[in-house]
Amino acid sequence: MAEPMVLINAFEVPGDQAEQFIAAWEKTRDYLQSQPGYIDTTLHQAVTPEADFQFVNVARWETAEAFLAATQSQGFRESAIGLVGYRPHPSLYRVVRT
Amino acid sequence: MAEPMVLINAFEVPGDQAEQFIAAWEKTRDYLQSQPGYIDTTLHQAVTPEADFQFVNVARWETAEAFLAATQSQGFRESAIGLVGYRPHPSLYRVVRT
Repeated sequence: MAEPMVLINAFEVPGDQAEQFIAAWEKTRDYLQSQPGYIDTTLHQAVTPEADFQFVNVARWETAEAFLAATQSQGFRESAIGLVGYRPHPSLYRVVRT
Repeated sequence: MAEPMVLINAFEVPGDQAEQFIAAWEKTRDYLQSQPGYIDTTLHQAVTPEADFQFVNVARWETAEAFLAATQSQGFRESAIGLVGYRPHPSLYRVVRT
């Protein structure tokens, strides 16, 4: 199998909205993990309030096409409604060095 | 052993400076991987030029103290000189959901 694609999404979340954000993220994850090409995902929370991004999600997908199909679906828009308002910085990445 | 700390650092890198950035990053990695508490690191490059961050580094350290000691050393400052000019967004994270 080819190397998976890595979706990295850094979110701007006010410190007092961490629990709300996590609940909304879980709902979106539950939808995405049912979609073809999903491999896994890991949500990271900053240990300090000074971080530019309180949360960073790192997920793996089999292909860019699978990720795009999943996130352009009506089901995604419905499941991700709770994330509206938390400014995201998403992109697909490839591992280039270790 | 306790869960490792995750350093996530998103870098702002102009598209035409990718090779320069990678070379500078490698020099910094070579220093850091010799330091106590270092576990591993993965450099991700965006697949599209529209990404807010062309590079995101995800590294694991045994403890926050080990990471801070390594990155506050004189050796780090010398090894990381080539990264000056690429605006970083670093923070330590914990995994909170998968």
